[in-house]
Amino acid sequence: MTDVAIDPDRVLGNLYALREIGKYKTGVHRPTLSTQDIEARQWLVDELNAIGHAAQIDGIANVFGQSPASDRVILAGSHIESQNHAGWLDGALGIVYALEAATVIAGSETLRGKGVDVIAFADEEGHFNNFLGSYSFVGELDETAIDQSRNRTNGIGLRDALSSAGLAGTPRLVMERQRYEGFLEAHIEQGDWLESEGLDVGIVESIVSICQYRLVFEGIQNHAGTTRMAIRKDAGVAARNLLQRIDEAFLDHSAPRTVWTTGRITLDPGAPSIIPGRAEVLFQFRDADPDKLEELHNVLHGLVEEDNSTGPCRVSIETISRSVPAVMDPNIKASFDQAAEQHTPARHARMPSGAGHDAQIIARHIPAGMLFVPSIGGISHHYTENTSDEHIVMGARVFVSAAARLLSSA
Amino acid sequence: MTDVAIDPDRVLGNLYALREIGKYKTGVHRPTLSTQDIEARQWLVDELNAIGHAAQIDGIANVFGQSPASDRVILAGSHIESQNHAGWLDGALGIVYALEAATVIAGSETLRGKGVDVIAFADEEGHFNNFLGSYSFVGELDETAIDQSRNRTNGIGLRDALSSAGLAGTPRLVMERQRYEGFLEAHIEQGDWLESEGLDVGIVESIVSICQYRLVFEGIQNHAGTTRMAIRKDAGVAARNLLQRIDEAFLDHSAPRTVWTTGRITLDPGAPSIIPGRAEVLFQFRDADPDKLEELHNVLHGLVEEDNSTGPCRVSIETISRSVPAVMDPNIKASFDQAAEQHTPARHARMPSGAGHDAQIIARHIPAGMLFVPSIGGISHHYTENTSDEHIVMGARVFVSAAARLLSSA
Repeated sequence: MTDVAIDPDRVLGNLYALREIGKYKTGVHRPTLSTQDIEARQWLVDELNAIGHAAQIDGIANVFGQSPASDRVILAGSHIESQNHAGWLDGALGIVYALEAATVIAGSETLRGKGVDVIAFADEEGHFNNFLGSYSFVGELDETAIDQSRNRTNGIGLRDALSSAGLAGTPRLVMERQRYEGFLEAHIEQGDWLESEGLDVGIVESIVSICQYRLVFEGIQNHAGTTRMAIRKDAGVAARNLLQRIDEAFLDHSAPRTVWTTGRITLDPGAPSIIPGRAEVLFQFRDADPDKLEELHNVLHGLVEEDNSTGPCRVSIETISRSVPAVMDPNIKASFDQAAEQHTPARHARMPSGAGHDAQIIARHIPAGMLFVPSIGGISHHYTENTSDEHIVMGARVFVSAAARLLSSA
Repeated sequence: MTDVAIDPDRVLGNLYALREIGKYKTGVHRPTLSTQDIEARQWLVDELNAIGHAAQIDGIANVFGQSPASDRVILAGSHIESQNHAGWLDGALGIVYALEAATVIAGSETLRGKGVDVIAFADEEGHFNNFLGSYSFVGELDETAIDQSRNRTNGIGLRDALSSAGLAGTPRLVMERQRYEGFLEAHIEQGDWLESEGLDVGIVESIVSICQYRLVFEGIQNHAGTTRMAIRKDAGVAARNLLQRIDEAFLDHSAPRTVWTTGRITLDPGAPSIIPGRAEVLFQFRDADPDKLEELHNVLHGLVEEDNSTGPCRVSIETISRSVPAVMDPNIKASFDQAAEQHTPARHARMPSGAGHDAQIIARHIPAGMLFVPSIGGISHHYTENTSDEHIVMGARVFVSAAARLLSSA
């Protein structure tokens, strides 16, 4: 299909245009429902209208641009807001690729009657609530949740923020599932794997599950000067020892892409001369394989049980959350593979997504797939986040080509 | 000396009387300069006046009761305030023993012309400032420090608190060094060593030094989902690993009574899905032997240096404080030994003090010595803190007997 070629200058130009909205150093500051965010959404509405889509901002601030096509349609998009003072590509890349796919395919003779609806979800980044827009679009966000959400930075209620953005009373759109062949989302990798492997694009196998736990250690708080080492029940030392054993066991049991993280350790009372009587640890692990997740969950609980039977402190474990891996659609993955092999032979690979994305919410309802481009140095959520122009352009080629394949296949 | 026998009922009765002032469950709540604290101090003034001492509360709330004796004089005492909602014996025991010594010796024909001055220091427990009263009494507390001190619980300034207690404008007393043979302080052990060894009293060899450090680990903050384990620079893991190595090295290098404690660990930013880019650790160790302290200081710095050369995180160490062990006076220790051997043969031993005491401040100026009695279960700074009546009485016997020996020796 020679008439689905992307325009590299348009892709880069659109990304540069978005970067101007809320520009912060070499990145952007475009939190959900800020004036910058609404300006970016309005920019997208205008771009979509310009290619003949019917575009609007709905009642949760999702931008939805409907193609006039009705034969075969794909949904494509990502989010458009950023983390605070963060990078220019996180979210924006997927928006611009979707816009490029919609533009190219709207102008394609070969794909007449076929089209790409574009969506810019609201608040994937969770200024108010993670995946607010995608939950709303699949009909899983109720009004009470909106009433209760507040901005994590400034405490402003979501209702007030929607109202200030002029969206009070605007209806929320819900996805017409039967309309779509599937959902495509592109994103920067946010890790360094593609770069380290010398690859141009990654095709996401599945979006990992996150299993989060709270470990609480109870020892005996005591005087750090008068209590001999032999009789101490130091909750902090107990926490350290168990975390060390978890590390060793996870090294044995993990798959190559398993990750595990201790994000917080709190010793109580936290004073220099008091032996901690209590310690609390936030621990999580991620993997794309449900069996591996189950295995690690059991390894963790086995270690906690063992620790409890040997002492000297009592340890309890509470599951904070366990999500299910979102497996990407085989057909969409195959289209990405083929498009990648066409444009950049052998410089692509399947990979898991370690981060969460809107695609994991949409994948519960329609087939979904994701394409990753390399992040320079693996940096994201920081204004220095970047991807080379070559990789941005190559990603767009593969993305639009895969969309065209999905639309043209019978 | 048959006429220096203590009155066990008076000793216990005085302790019971003090326990009524600020009674809290089976302990007391008598924070520095509270109405309860001032009531306790006034009680002591009255008791001292009743035995013919000239007693007063000075401008920092030290109670000082001067014996009419001028031949040979000993200073004895401890602190009278408590930690918040804490035990009945911490401080009070040393006050009541000092009062008993003063009472018995004031009435002794054999020791005519000799006496015991009694002091109840203000704020050893540090509601405003650790060792406030003892620093004042040795002339090492300036007016600026008083201006700047605030109550750690309620934020009230020390000046205001002194004023509310009616002490504004009252002069602060400074020790007449040449008046004293030495200073004697009795205290509960606050640990479980005497109990575990089946001993009745402990004679303090020296009060340990506390060496306190801040360890800062700098790694790279990153996404807990997209950053592979192999390339992480997790400051929290680095902290845990070094603390583990410190533990192992200290087990090799420590003396039997060395103690070391990690009181606080802070991971930054402390979020469940972010790899900590920075970790801060408060670490301390204590020992009574200056050579051992120096050795451990060097071991610690060696490990930090080694860790820095191997990576993956940068670690820096800052010395927060290094005190000097306060060695107790050999002559006073010998008097305690002899008195203990007389009253409870072979059920006494030399030991370090793992906690700080007013005696360490006084020891810089005049000879000082300390006597410990067992703490049941090693508990202190808690309302369940206790010592058996037998041990309280035995401690008083040894304490007063040692004071008499010091006063009668040529």
